[in-house]
Amino acid sequence: MPISRLCPSVPQIVACTRDNQTGSKSVSGRPKGSPQLNRWSRARAVRSGKKLDRSSLRTQPPGPNAPLRQYPLPVDPVNLDGADVLAVKSIYMVSDGTGWTAEHCVNAALGQFDYCLVDRGCPVSTHLFSGIDDAEKLLEITKQAAKEGALLVYTLADPSLALAAKQACKLWGVPSTDVLGPITEAIASHLGVSPSGLPRGASGLPLSDDYFRRIEAVEFTIKQDDGASPQNLAKADIVLTGVSRTGKTPLSIYLAQKGYRVANVPIVLGVAIPRTLFEVDPKKVFGLTINPLVLQNIRRARTKTMGLSSDGRSNYSEMDYVREELEFAGRLFAQNPLWPVIDVTGKAIEETAAVVLRLYHDRMHKCTMPRISKRY
Amino acid sequence: MPISRLCPSVPQIVACTRDNQTGSKSVSGRPKGSPQLNRWSRARAVRSGKKLDRSSLRTQPPGPNAPLRQYPLPVDPVNLDGADVLAVKSIYMVSDGTGWTAEHCVNAALGQFDYCLVDRGCPVSTHLFSGIDDAEKLLEITKQAAKEGALLVYTLADPSLALAAKQACKLWGVPSTDVLGPITEAIASHLGVSPSGLPRGASGLPLSDDYFRRIEAVEFTIKQDDGASPQNLAKADIVLTGVSRTGKTPLSIYLAQKGYRVANVPIVLGVAIPRTLFEVDPKKVFGLTINPLVLQNIRRARTKTMGLSSDGRSNYSEMDYVREELEFAGRLFAQNPLWPVIDVTGKAIEETAAVVLRLYHDRMHKCTMPRISKRY
Repeated sequence: MPISRLCPSVPQIVACTRDNQTGSKSVSGRPKGSPQLNRWSRARAVRSGKKLDRSSLRTQPPGPNAPLRQYPLPVDPVNLDGADVLAVKSIYMVSDGTGWTAEHCVNAALGQFDYCLVDRGCPVSTHLFSGIDDAEKLLEITKQAAKEGALLVYTLADPSLALAAKQACKLWGVPSTDVLGPITEAIASHLGVSPSGLPRGASGLPLSDDYFRRIEAVEFTIKQDDGASPQNLAKADIVLTGVSRTGKTPLSIYLAQKGYRVANVPIVLGVAIPRTLFEVDPKKVFGLTINPLVLQNIRRARTKTMGLSSDGRSNYSEMDYVREELEFAGRLFAQNPLWPVIDVTGKAIEETAAVVLRLYHDRMHKCTMPRISKRY
Repeated sequence: MPISRLCPSVPQIVACTRDNQTGSKSVSGRPKGSPQLNRWSRARAVRSGKKLDRSSLRTQPPGPNAPLRQYPLPVDPVNLDGADVLAVKSIYMVSDGTGWTAEHCVNAALGQFDYCLVDRGCPVSTHLFSGIDDAEKLLEITKQAAKEGALLVYTLADPSLALAAKQACKLWGVPSTDVLGPITEAIASHLGVSPSGLPRGASGLPLSDDYFRRIEAVEFTIKQDDGASPQNLAKADIVLTGVSRTGKTPLSIYLAQKGYRVANVPIVLGVAIPRTLFEVDPKKVFGLTINPLVLQNIRRARTKTMGLSSDGRSNYSEMDYVREELEFAGRLFAQNPLWPVIDVTGKAIEETAAVVLRLYHDRMHKCTMPRISKRY
């Protein structure tokens, strides 16, 4: 079950002697050293398990010599006699629409705190309230946020609701952020047109052609999965090829949801590659590769949960076989140098997708600056 | 091809006598009439094809009696002798990571302008620049934005890059919005921890358990598609059932990407429903229904592109058959009153998903206020 059973009336208190330092916002000064050096320094600090300096709230990046301060470490919650433990911080996401934008933004921002989330140094729970289209529900949620000491993040298309949220949060001392308002205002200024103030779906306008194209792309891609119909490679926008467990399936689905018809062609040691792969426009073919150790681990885990490999190969996860299969793929890629080869080791699907699409658009459109363009 | 071939050096000029009223930001006053009345009034205005009042930039919602002003209508671009036409407005989305957050936010905000995008009254093109992790590339893009009169929207985790973007935009007069900064700062204050300043994937931290669970859910759901393995219904988190073309496939994939294992059970007139559907926990079953006329149109369109229906039924899109099949489904739902039935007519998949998940969590967790909760 991908969610917790956290209900606001039973806050999950682990403990609470956290230093409640709020501080004031610092003015971001020019960091010492080059930006690249500072980035690498922070990455090293994160990987070494050290915590970043909290002396300024936002974005004075610690230079290489900045003091590193540890925040309180989490303690086993069963040993509560005077021990320091950490209260779970709540984030409420409130929308008069689906709430997916608020959720996406919060998840993106939380990526900045992965380093302390991973060891439960700053436990967080999020709560999404969608379809909040009247002030009464909004106020009820805000009151609960105040009780729970939650942060309230909102995407309220209706301007009167957005105003009500702002005022209620101010009144009850709930920290809040309007995620939708600023970007909507910026676009309204830019276009010279008023926003409708209606959440998506409430305008009564028909679904767009682009929407139906994305649906069709998903359906095409599902039927294509595992190179099921090589003769359809020509119809695909993008063709992914690689050995088993390089992430072709979830990547193809992710790309399909963005509107691209994707076909997958698996590479299997000793099995002939479909002829049609060599006949399609090479600009749409992308090879996927991965570190052999990582691949072996993934295959072992899968074999544990699924029994044999999905195609019955008994040596599927043995290192010799893994290496041999990756080398087989490597030779295929070398013989087809027009196919970009992407190493997916340690990359999330969204990151690989960004690389694929950047290359795809660059190759298809040859703009001076690689970009993904779309017309509305 | 889901993108345009728009390159910045060849702006797609349709015409340009748009009234360049920028105005100052208005203070949102209290709208006349109830918020609900105002919302309905705006929806009516939108549906009737009238344009909303632009006399205040942001979100003084027009009351029922507010004057409605038409912006210039687009003109056939081939008749350019002195005719009024509209320049395409550009929005640049710049990220040091994948850019998907910036894209999502811009798309969400553009939903507020659907009413004028649909008739090309305010043509927009977006351009996504991902992986912009050094100042040089950033400045190049900003200069181009200035040339093109684009709005620049950015999600730059690296604080020095975010500062550079802000300063460059100010210098070159490029309107800009930082989408990630405010929410990150709010969360940093709330948690009492510094953000890492690293885009996702750059920290070197391993991918999370939640990530792998989502991948596994997608793979489960792909194999489940079209009720392929009824014996696996018990393993699914959510079971969708409905007649053909109620959107089960794309909806199941959308939910799977959020981490839910989904099984689909098609309802076909005259075909026995798998026994296992009645044996699973009814709290996880959701029925989908749709307006018969809309369903007929969808099926006709599909039959045109695909030949016969995917399962060979020749009367698939005939109205009598459509009605009969929907009534068959309706009787099944009536016999199983614990299954919520969702009407998907005119709803986008994201909206139906929000409804399904709100109901799912409410039924599973019985919180005082329905919400979707997640622990990090």
